[in-house]
Amino acid sequence: MSARKLIVLGTASQVPTRQRNHNGYFLKWDEEGILFDPGEGTQRQMTLANVSATEITKICITHFHGDHCLGLAGVIQRLSLDNVQHEVEIYYPASGQKYFENLRDASIFYNTAKLRPRPITAPGILWQNEKLQLETQPLRHSVESWGFRWSEKDTVTMQAEKLAALGIRGVEVGRLKQQGQLEKDGRVILLADVSVPKAGQSMAFVMDTGMCDAAIALAREASVLVCESTYQASEQKEAESRGHLTAQQAATIAKDANAKMLVLTHFSQRYTSMDGFIREAYPIHPNVIAVQDGDVVMIRK
Amino acid sequence: MSARKLIVLGTASQVPTRQRNHNGYFLKWDEEGILFDPGEGTQRQMTLANVSATEITKICITHFHGDHCLGLAGVIQRLSLDNVQHEVEIYYPASGQKYFENLRDASIFYNTAKLRPRPITAPGILWQNEKLQLETQPLRHSVESWGFRWSEKDTVTMQAEKLAALGIRGVEVGRLKQQGQLEKDGRVILLADVSVPKAGQSMAFVMDTGMCDAAIALAREASVLVCESTYQASEQKEAESRGHLTAQQAATIAKDANAKMLVLTHFSQRYTSMDGFIREAYPIHPNVIAVQDGDVVMIRK
Repeated sequence: MSARKLIVLGTASQVPTRQRNHNGYFLKWDEEGILFDPGEGTQRQMTLANVSATEITKICITHFHGDHCLGLAGVIQRLSLDNVQHEVEIYYPASGQKYFENLRDASIFYNTAKLRPRPITAPGILWQNEKLQLETQPLRHSVESWGFRWSEKDTVTMQAEKLAALGIRGVEVGRLKQQGQLEKDGRVILLADVSVPKAGQSMAFVMDTGMCDAAIALAREASVLVCESTYQASEQKEAESRGHLTAQQAATIAKDANAKMLVLTHFSQRYTSMDGFIREAYPIHPNVIAVQDGDVVMIRK
Repeated sequence: MSARKLIVLGTASQVPTRQRNHNGYFLKWDEEGILFDPGEGTQRQMTLANVSATEITKICITHFHGDHCLGLAGVIQRLSLDNVQHEVEIYYPASGQKYFENLRDASIFYNTAKLRPRPITAPGILWQNEKLQLETQPLRHSVESWGFRWSEKDTVTMQAEKLAALGIRGVEVGRLKQQGQLEKDGRVILLADVSVPKAGQSMAFVMDTGMCDAAIALAREASVLVCESTYQASEQKEAESRGHLTAQQAATIAKDANAKMLVLTHFSQRYTSMDGFIREAYPIHPNVIAVQDGDVVMIRK
């Protein structure tokens, strides 16, 4: 079991519609499960998508507009109800401490969850272990908003033939990989001599923002860029005045960042068809989809 | 346009399921629209049921468990977003003032709604006008919980033949109705002499409670009793220990109160079929339904 996939729980900006719930995105990544921007109704959307509260290990909130956070109350209560034993870190803009607390204490319940609030105060790495990391960068919106990048650290693939030719085997391989070099028969072997670099997979999450360099930085070489595209280019002025993106702009970010795949979401309710979004983005970044609630985007190793 | 109907927005207790959202009940009553117990996702359930925020004139919250109130945040924000101009009174247990405030201030939004908080501190009439009234009585639950009764005041139907025989007409009829008597040709005519009593319609809302007299009092002669029946009789012990009702008990309340129609809701997720609820309730109170999300119960004049 080491599936990596993005489960789309909700895709509506501002107000839910018949077809689309408020935002909500669950990234299943091996043993980690990161819930991004749980809008109202995320608890039920999780049920519909067969995601259990137990799978959540981290929660990331870009900003405290209701369509990105109102579902936090229900999710937190569900962690307690389902008796989730592990810690759950919650990342959110520090300026929204009051909203975090109000959502955490939104109604009467017996709180047993091991919540670890992690208010964001500066860009950079929020969390990391040996293999993975979570980074953030400030976006450009009408309120404080932070984008995220979840990534596997770059590693190397060892070249078996070269190792064999040099007689390196067993624990020596591990030592070489860890230390970057190895003395063998009086000669120093560098890791780079017997391996090729393997870039880690990553998912960038860019949500409510106007065009900005940080969005590109977060999306750099990403396996998947999940990007808001509230509007189409015909509404670009409105998009700019409200701190949002058009599909054209989202595709431009994906292209400039050389992201592999672009996932468009967070659509204004005024659009009934997604064709226009794809028509705009495709010429700029052909590997693009406009997601619906319940869609699953596989991130293959 | 003077439709009276109950629009069922959600019917799940504790956690939402694939089929059932958290609670939510919208009573459309002529020009009034009363939203009862908006659980998480009520905003979207309203959209699915074609209820607009503008139709809400009052909100009633029985108690502050999440399945009965988490949707208040979204509904309040929607009142502002949709620029609702009229006042909206919100009734809730006074001990939950903190939760009311947390839900009202759950995230960043531009609050323009004319909310009128009305914390409940005592049983009795919460609001009334010439024709209508809203009453409350304390229920018996694990936390402070109040039931509601929305009712039309009793009135009379004038008997045209008797009026004609006495030569009472035009403004005299109105005066007689208003004052209860009228002097005509030196004789005192009582309203009761020329009219028959007409009982007002009413809806009782009894939600989270164990058996109690207040539930019966609220439901007395009600046109419709909406009553929680979390459990079936086989789980009566569990129901009692948790301050909930079985379908059998709900039917007994309806029978003892002589309520005309019984609407069962707030079902535990353990039951996949509603048959058992109806089987239990029917022998005690035959006019019973077990509702699903989206059901509409007409209250005919």
